[in-house]
Amino acid sequence: MELWYTETYREGTRFSMKVKGTLYHAETPYQVVDVVDTDDYGRVMLLDGLIMLTDRDEFIYHEMIAHVPMLAHPNPKKVLIIGGGDGGTLREVLRHPEVEEAHLCEIDDKVIEASKEFFPAFHSAFSDPRSRVFVEDGIAFIERSKGQYDVIIVDSTDPIGPAVELFEAPFFTKVSEALRPGGVFVQQSETVYGNADIVRDLFGQLRSVFPKVSGYMACIPTYPTGFWTFCFCSAGRDPFEAFDAERAARIEARGLRYYNADLHRGAFALPTFVRQVVRGE
Amino acid sequence: MELWYTETYREGTRFSMKVKGTLYHAETPYQVVDVVDTDDYGRVMLLDGLIMLTDRDEFIYHEMIAHVPMLAHPNPKKVLIIGGGDGGTLREVLRHPEVEEAHLCEIDDKVIEASKEFFPAFHSAFSDPRSRVFVEDGIAFIERSKGQYDVIIVDSTDPIGPAVELFEAPFFTKVSEALRPGGVFVQQSETVYGNADIVRDLFGQLRSVFPKVSGYMACIPTYPTGFWTFCFCSAGRDPFEAFDAERAARIEARGLRYYNADLHRGAFALPTFVRQVVRGE
Repeated sequence: MELWYTETYREGTRFSMKVKGTLYHAETPYQVVDVVDTDDYGRVMLLDGLIMLTDRDEFIYHEMIAHVPMLAHPNPKKVLIIGGGDGGTLREVLRHPEVEEAHLCEIDDKVIEASKEFFPAFHSAFSDPRSRVFVEDGIAFIERSKGQYDVIIVDSTDPIGPAVELFEAPFFTKVSEALRPGGVFVQQSETVYGNADIVRDLFGQLRSVFPKVSGYMACIPTYPTGFWTFCFCSAGRDPFEAFDAERAARIEARGLRYYNADLHRGAFALPTFVRQVVRGE
Repeated sequence: MELWYTETYREGTRFSMKVKGTLYHAETPYQVVDVVDTDDYGRVMLLDGLIMLTDRDEFIYHEMIAHVPMLAHPNPKKVLIIGGGDGGTLREVLRHPEVEEAHLCEIDDKVIEASKEFFPAFHSAFSDPRSRVFVEDGIAFIERSKGQYDVIIVDSTDPIGPAVELFEAPFFTKVSEALRPGGVFVQQSETVYGNADIVRDLFGQLRSVFPKVSGYMACIPTYPTGFWTFCFCSAGRDPFEAFDAERAARIEARGLRYYNADLHRGAFALPTFVRQVVRGE
């Protein structure tokens, strides 16, 4: 018997991976969590049937969501990740020796459980003495965290289901209040390709809260269209002013495979049709 | 009845597009040429069952393979495209007012025929008085073209079938001889992702011929992994030294949707794992 998992990107587009077997399945109050083993991508975690990460290309998403804000900040001592229960973003954040505390707030403990059991690459993140995991709603958590964090990263699912409020202005206001002076905020912001209205609206809501908003991109083979955007927001800091190439080189040398000093700037060079959406043109 | 076209990227990965119907089918001495109409991508041309272009995202590939070399050269008067029988690259080259002659050498006239019939976006390229089409083998053509061209672009299929010799050092030597002094050469160079050995070998062969070789990238949703590379080669010119932002802005204003002045540099900022392959590390 041959098993294939198929994700329907749009009604007329499908992406399929040959599956060796199912390793984990849980129906939680928030979503359905699955881990499958595949021929081409190693282990794959799916939430509500959407590919969240694969052994093979998770480094792209996790390096790019973490190191851009971490190196945009001159001294990121205290970091918050909302979502990201798999631990991949946490692992990248903890590569930075400046970090004294890294908090992870994940609503669904089954995501953490599945990751700990099936993704050994992320184990070190959870056992690092600087990391602390909170299993609760990110919005409630951030409301009582005023002025606490140098870097906040929202590593959420798509703006449907449990994550929908994480893509709206009231949440962004709370994020801005949870930042320390000079702090920066990054969130995954979907693909523009076929989603232009959602991304345009998201950046518009971000601009209504943050004085500085820009977008950057990475190419992620197992996400729909490959074409993934991230938003970078702050009260005034731009992504480059505190960037230190020597610090970046030290992080790169710790085994990074995607992010590097050239890309820190290059990833903000957006294709014209993406730039128009990000700028609300 | 629901029709789906499925491209098998690797044995364990498939990409499928819902198809309204087949518009064109030809079995030529070189390959099988198909044009299908799809729900999500408009019309799609396939060669030997591999997606070559879609109405929806062809602009990415064609803008990036054409405008990077065209703007790296200070005055590209005479341009050669090998392959590219669809006319998309030719259309982009002809946006440049400096061009006096644009030659297209395509081995398979059925590709040209199919494009002229089903891809009206490319019509203008073929009817432009500066363009001239040669239906013949690119290698024979380039042998008798010594010192002729400011820019040469190889817009070929994958290094299997009729295009295989276009990825080997003897051909690159002929390309280097067909360039005028100061000329530049660009070729599509596949995805690194899952193809690292092929791409590493290709760049190694290019470096054995051209003193300057670098790589750049674009994200193309309907190509396997999305992660597409291009090689930029010359006897000495780098991609940036002749770059003129005002000239780029004039080209951008002619309706480009991907390429822009920021990306001219940003596209050369390669992810680490791509850079290692391109440099042969």
